[in-house]
Amino acid sequence: MMFNGYNEGLVEAIRGWLKEDVGSGDVTTAVTIPAGHESKGIIHAKQGGIVAGMPVAQLVFEIVDPNLTFTPHVKDGERIEKGAILAEVEGSTYSILTGERLALNLLQRLSGIATRTKTFVEALGGLSTRLVDTRKTTPGHRMLEKYAVRTGGGSNHRFGLYDAVMIKDNHIKGAGGITQAVSRARAHIPHTMTIEVETENLEQVEEALQAGANIIMLDNMAPDLMKEAVRRIKAKAPHVTVEASGNVSLETIRGIAESGVDVISVGRLTYSFESLDISLDLNGKKEA
Amino acid sequence: MMFNGYNEGLVEAIRGWLKEDVGSGDVTTAVTIPAGHESKGIIHAKQGGIVAGMPVAQLVFEIVDPNLTFTPHVKDGERIEKGAILAEVEGSTYSILTGERLALNLLQRLSGIATRTKTFVEALGGLSTRLVDTRKTTPGHRMLEKYAVRTGGGSNHRFGLYDAVMIKDNHIKGAGGITQAVSRARAHIPHTMTIEVETENLEQVEEALQAGANIIMLDNMAPDLMKEAVRRIKAKAPHVTVEASGNVSLETIRGIAESGVDVISVGRLTYSFESLDISLDLNGKKEA
Amino acid sequence: MMFNGYNEGLVEAIRGWLKEDVGSGDVTTAVTIPAGHESKGIIHAKQGGIVAGMPVAQLVFEIVDPNLTFTPHVKDGERIEKGAILAEVEGSTYSILTGERLALNLLQRLSGIATRTKTFVEALGGLSTRLVDTRKTTPGHRMLEKYAVRTGGGSNHRFGLYDAVMIKDNHIKGAGGITQAVSRARAHIPHTMTIEVETENLEQVEEALQAGANIIMLDNMAPDLMKEAVRRIKAKAPHVTVEASGNVSLETIRGIAESGVDVISVGRLTYSFESLDISLDLNGKKEA
Amino acid sequence: MMFNGYNEGLVEAIRGWLKEDVGSGDVTTAVTIPAGHESKGIIHAKQGGIVAGMPVAQLVFEIVDPNLTFTPHVKDGERIEKGAILAEVEGSTYSILTGERLALNLLQRLSGIATRTKTFVEALGGLSTRLVDTRKTTPGHRMLEKYAVRTGGGSNHRFGLYDAVMIKDNHIKGAGGITQAVSRARAHIPHTMTIEVETENLEQVEEALQAGANIIMLDNMAPDLMKEAVRRIKAKAPHVTVEASGNVSLETIRGIAESGVDVISVGRLTYSFESLDISLDLNGKKEA
Amino acid sequence: MMFNGYNEGLVEAIRGWLKEDVGSGDVTTAVTIPAGHESKGIIHAKQGGIVAGMPVAQLVFEIVDPNLTFTPHVKDGERIEKGAILAEVEGSTYSILTGERLALNLLQRLSGIATRTKTFVEALGGLSTRLVDTRKTTPGHRMLEKYAVRTGGGSNHRFGLYDAVMIKDNHIKGAGGITQAVSRARAHIPHTMTIEVETENLEQVEEALQAGANIIMLDNMAPDLMKEAVRRIKAKAPHVTVEASGNVSLETIRGIAESGVDVISVGRLTYSFESLDISLDLNGKKEA
Amino acid sequence: MMFNGYNEGLVEAIRGWLKEDVGSGDVTTAVTIPAGHESKGIIHAKQGGIVAGMPVAQLVFEIVDPNLTFTPHVKDGERIEKGAILAEVEGSTYSILTGERLALNLLQRLSGIATRTKTFVEALGGLSTRLVDTRKTTPGHRMLEKYAVRTGGGSNHRFGLYDAVMIKDNHIKGAGGITQAVSRARAHIPHTMTIEVETENLEQVEEALQAGANIIMLDNMAPDLMKEAVRRIKAKAPHVTVEASGNVSLETIRGIAESGVDVISVGRLTYSFESLDISLDLNGKKEA
Repeated sequence: MMFNGYNEGLVEAIRGWLKEDVGSGDVTTAVTIPAGHESKGIIHAKQGGIVAGMPVAQLVFEIVDPNLTFTPHVKDGERIEKGAILAEVEGSTYSILTGERLALNLLQRLSGIATRTKTFVEALGGLSTRLVDTRKTTPGHRMLEKYAVRTGGGSNHRFGLYDAVMIKDNHIKGAGGITQAVSRARAHIPHTMTIEVETENLEQVEEALQAGANIIMLDNMAPDLMKEAVRRIKAKAPHVTVEASGNVSLETIRGIAESGVDVISVGRLTYSFESLDISLDLNGKKEA
Repeated sequence: MMFNGYNEGLVEAIRGWLKEDVGSGDVTTAVTIPAGHESKGIIHAKQGGIVAGMPVAQLVFEIVDPNLTFTPHVKDGERIEKGAILAEVEGSTYSILTGERLALNLLQRLSGIATRTKTFVEALGGLSTRLVDTRKTTPGHRMLEKYAVRTGGGSNHRFGLYDAVMIKDNHIKGAGGITQAVSRARAHIPHTMTIEVETENLEQVEEALQAGANIIMLDNMAPDLMKEAVRRIKAKAPHVTVEASGNVSLETIRGIAESGVDVISVGRLTYSFESLDISLDLNGKKEA
Repeated sequence: MMFNGYNEGLVEAIRGWLKEDVGSGDVTTAVTIPAGHESKGIIHAKQGGIVAGMPVAQLVFEIVDPNLTFTPHVKDGERIEKGAILAEVEGSTYSILTGERLALNLLQRLSGIATRTKTFVEALGGLSTRLVDTRKTTPGHRMLEKYAVRTGGGSNHRFGLYDAVMIKDNHIKGAGGITQAVSRARAHIPHTMTIEVETENLEQVEEALQAGANIIMLDNMAPDLMKEAVRRIKAKAPHVTVEASGNVSLETIRGIAESGVDVISVGRLTYSFESLDISLDLNGKKEA
Repeated sequence: MMFNGYNEGLVEAIRGWLKEDVGSGDVTTAVTIPAGHESKGIIHAKQGGIVAGMPVAQLVFEIVDPNLTFTPHVKDGERIEKGAILAEVEGSTYSILTGERLALNLLQRLSGIATRTKTFVEALGGLSTRLVDTRKTTPGHRMLEKYAVRTGGGSNHRFGLYDAVMIKDNHIKGAGGITQAVSRARAHIPHTMTIEVETENLEQVEEALQAGANIIMLDNMAPDLMKEAVRRIKAKAPHVTVEASGNVSLETIRGIAESGVDVISVGRLTYSFESLDISLDLNGKKEA
Repeated sequence: MMFNGYNEGLVEAIRGWLKEDVGSGDVTTAVTIPAGHESKGIIHAKQGGIVAGMPVAQLVFEIVDPNLTFTPHVKDGERIEKGAILAEVEGSTYSILTGERLALNLLQRLSGIATRTKTFVEALGGLSTRLVDTRKTTPGHRMLEKYAVRTGGGSNHRFGLYDAVMIKDNHIKGAGGITQAVSRARAHIPHTMTIEVETENLEQVEEALQAGANIIMLDNMAPDLMKEAVRRIKAKAPHVTVEASGNVSLETIRGIAESGVDVISVGRLTYSFESLDISLDLNGKKEA
Repeated sequence: MMFNGYNEGLVEAIRGWLKEDVGSGDVTTAVTIPAGHESKGIIHAKQGGIVAGMPVAQLVFEIVDPNLTFTPHVKDGERIEKGAILAEVEGSTYSILTGERLALNLLQRLSGIATRTKTFVEALGGLSTRLVDTRKTTPGHRMLEKYAVRTGGGSNHRFGLYDAVMIKDNHIKGAGGITQAVSRARAHIPHTMTIEVETENLEQVEEALQAGANIIMLDNMAPDLMKEAVRRIKAKAPHVTVEASGNVSLETIRGIAESGVDVISVGRLTYSFESLDISLDLNGKKEA
């Protein structure tokens, strides 16, 4: 959805982020680098992983100075080794140094997310279960982080509170039961919208199924319970999607998938993360 | 600097982050929770650590709905145990559920940073060396993350490109040497602004000292080299601040500090992080 | 989804609309009405219909001047007769006259949409078919106009390009067929998102069904053809929603609904409209 | 005033309207149309009328994607027949489909207004009376709708509350009479600004004349009364402009004009409207 | 027009100006003043003059901190002596010091403009000629500066390029003559808008009169020529306003007014200025 | 710092300033100048001085219309004589006239500041003392006005409340003394930030010195006292900067500088000012 076309929101966000860093001007570069000075910057990896965010980094440099030339050497989704050159950027030294920190911050974080996502995806190798993210993203970065999850081979859960109904424990209490919650929701939402219900036991699974949920989430269930829930759902309503959630780790994910769920959601894809170490050197100096 | 008073920028940022998550409305809550329904939400820790971001979480709920009542039980900077109650928020269920995710996302991340910072600060126990952060912060979150570092007992490096001169390798090349870079800078900057020079060896240290740098950064130097650099600087110019930087970890930080440097900057305080696990339960249900 | 809680976007929009009308100030009122002058304004209907937009009108006056008192006499969705009093607004005359035009413009337009919607809904009396709107809304007013449709008893189609996949003729051509379009879409979208396919004949209906569409739209089909399409879809996949679209008028809508479709979408609910005639008089003067 | 040059406000408005429709991305097109796919779109009329808004539609496509080529075949103000081609737009299929709905929505509405305006203007054929609009425009669209009125051969009333003094019933009451209202206004406004007074009978007309109004509006007067009012005003002050207002329809407008008024204001030019039916087809398919 | 009611634009401007000064926070106050410290600030004049901007200063403090109490001792338009107390502001010391500079900057500048304006107005004592400003205002401050001119007893010229037609030398050249320029303008503008023509000699005055200008400006004419121009205009068209402009000083203004012109415009009211010296002292310390 | 590269904030400010003047459109030009009319405008000086703001004027015209060609004849910082041509701007007459007023307003004001600054700098001829500005700048114009001061040969004081600690009388009272204020500040600020203390007598000077201030400001001291203060400071701490402030005029500045202070701050560089008289004539007409 991103980088294929119109991206007004991203341009605005980058402008805000640049303002945060540059403020009233990059004092150091303005007073030490002679006007008109030009350089070539080499962006290279100090660590291996999956690249994500190349077009974002390019956009940062374009916004700082449309006269910079940005030449990518790799594409988002590629696995790179330590030492690989990701891109070159040429033109005004002032402009390169002004955009450097933001471009790297974004590239490092998005690549970090893509790299972690890939590890989880590989743990599901050979199974049809899809790995998805959650809403536990960095405020202001959701669409970018969800893009990084897709780049790493994962899929996305809903984008926000606005594009799907997700009935959790608190909504069930407020509405007076799963049945009431689902039927009230169905009466008010666009017919293009789906209803997901979070369940904790087989009774809730049965009630959600009966109520007509499109997606049933099995929250923190033990493997055997999960298997039984999947069996019952698929027997009665094969078109209903089953999602597993809760305390999913690299150790447990394959076992969960083998219960037959369609989708597994993992908060830690974006909730905590390790940036991928990426640097920019002027004038071609690069990591040996 | 934050939370003591006027915070226009933060209010704007929170509005933007809410828009990202809520978009055209929280469909689920709107269609399942009856109008006028009220609840009490308990925010509690599922993991121990240092709390940071309570006033931010409060501000999120205030912006969502000025009629919510937010009662903090702990203060930023306190160490909490697993199970501790951080705050209660009462009022419209719709409003609590609308602000929940953003308030938690911020509290979890900032507390994660404060907790990690505290670990580094404790490693420096008994020494006068100060721990500082870098500009490797999440785009759009710099002032909050720098606040979390202070909350964890650390100090801040400069806020952005606009409030101090930091002459690095690339600027030295562009200007034709440390001496030229410092003297050009001094002629153009406000007299209230300081000049820091990044150095990699003793020759550069001597040149920076001679040129009149206010702060000399020792980049990635071996312990003995660092000790010698500190000795030379303090002998000639006791008012010059010495900063160590580069590959600082929990294992190496105390050794670096013992070289006598005034300040150690650590990118990983904000560059990668583990969120602290914090939850919100409606109607008083809490972690046993 | 609107008016139940957090509405930042609407507040911003109203500020912009006020600026459009008030610009550098309401010159007339400023130079003719003495400072401190107070009045009571009566908002009343000069034409009968369904009211929609009361909370929006109230919000306009609140934004203009938080000290105004707005007392609604009717609720959104009520049918009113010519002459009915909708609300009273008391306080600074300057403020009432400054907000008057915008408050009325919105109330008139939204009530006009709700009134027309109700006429269509009544034409479907006794049937289970739902009436829905389209994306042919006034730019910048979509969420308000979709709210007016709901107020008039209709339902909503998707909110925008972002919350459901709707595969039309042009996408089918680009993708190389319905099967390819649906299967490519399914692989990339969140599992919480639905796929609707627009069809023009029974072959396309069959292909969409086979491909796994969640919603099948019958575009401009003759009544008999439509009946047959519904029969085939429901026989094979009772959980698939069937939508009729194209040249729906008050005369034809009941006949279309009797073909058994679940949903009928009608562009003219918002595409062209008659405002409902509503006025504000100061100091209690009202329509006899 | 629009489309002759600097139009910052319009660009901003279009960006906001695109965001409303596109939100987090055009999911359907992104997941069904292969990257790099190109098309030609034909914009054609499904109904005859007066075209208005061609440069706005062009601006929409330019903002979505500066690489699209937009070739207009007709100019604003031209009368077109059903089937006429208005423009072609070539380039990225993703971009064309992303901008399509907004470009059409604007073109349809503005052409609808111009077409209705032209009908009223033709009813005044041969007379010198000018037809003008009111402030009853769609919030956020005033300058565009006033442009459409001009395109259809009408003129504009004031742009907003900021560019002329218009003393109505409520102001007269607040100020204590027409004389007081006009004299207070004259003392405070720029000498470049005019004063219009709304009158309901001959006494008020005389008072407004005496007080020095620049424009006298005859509100809802019967034809004979109106004729007499015009006679008296023109006898004493030929430079004063006379405006008729209130319940003007296609049936009554010519009679009103024959009373000798200079200007007739008609709310329904923008208050209610029929969009002109205009479509976009990809790859040259057009209405037979 | 300002301070009587809705002032959204001013609130936005003040927020932007605060951001310019406060940026990421008032470091000094944050790190030296204990949390919760309260004070009383006394705003007093170090120089006599006409006060303008009290409500703006109050608004600045309200925006910084709604809990501050601002008590004005004088009103806009009053003449004050050196040493006079203008207002007291009580509450959080942090908030008072954060808003201080901006509140004073605005008060000093607006009072400077009002004071200078008053001097010019006094030079016209006993004559009916009005003194008006121009568009040579500080970018971003026009409505405030025009308010200060009114506060000092002057009147305003048009607010901007949007609210009156002012045909100057360059437009006359472009249109091919005064007659053509006026008649083209009349055909296109709202009937509520006036046309002013700038003239340099009697031929142009006659042509403007003939063409139907509402206001005739006499640009840089010698006293005798000006007198003759006024005589001719008033003889033929007493309702036409005559404006004098160009090189008006305190020495020449009375002589110009005595030529009988209705209005004299003076650029230097806002083009250059002396701020009025106004200070804020904490805790009641005041100028002896 | 400005005009060397990325200037997002300035572009935004210019857009806002244009909106203030142009509002809903330049009516006069739109209705008198035929579409497509082109001209050349000559910007020339009607008064001699130091030019500042050429790139800002150019940016104004670029934002109004990217197709205008702007050819500068002089550079910022040059001294020009009355009659000198500063620049030519060619292209659409509508665009030139739309941008004219704002471009001139900025050029006149910035050149006025640069010219006054140069006079003060010349009064310091031959001495090493630096002349600096203050925060008494026009709200919204600080970075431009500080740039004009640099252009006139001066230097800048801190940019705002965010980039240096400046402890004044009010902070000293709040903190309980200079010693306490400085030590609290040092513990909390980035090590890249300096502390300036305002002093009124020798006791305060000694205390500030002892406390470790980086800059000591001598506020309103008599010449002899100032000399003694400088002597004491430089004897004990040669790296501490000494700043003089308070009632500095062209008559007194050289005497103050001879006391040996490093820096003199002068509020009136920006606090009050005379614009430099600069005009734009279309089609090459210029001042004889």
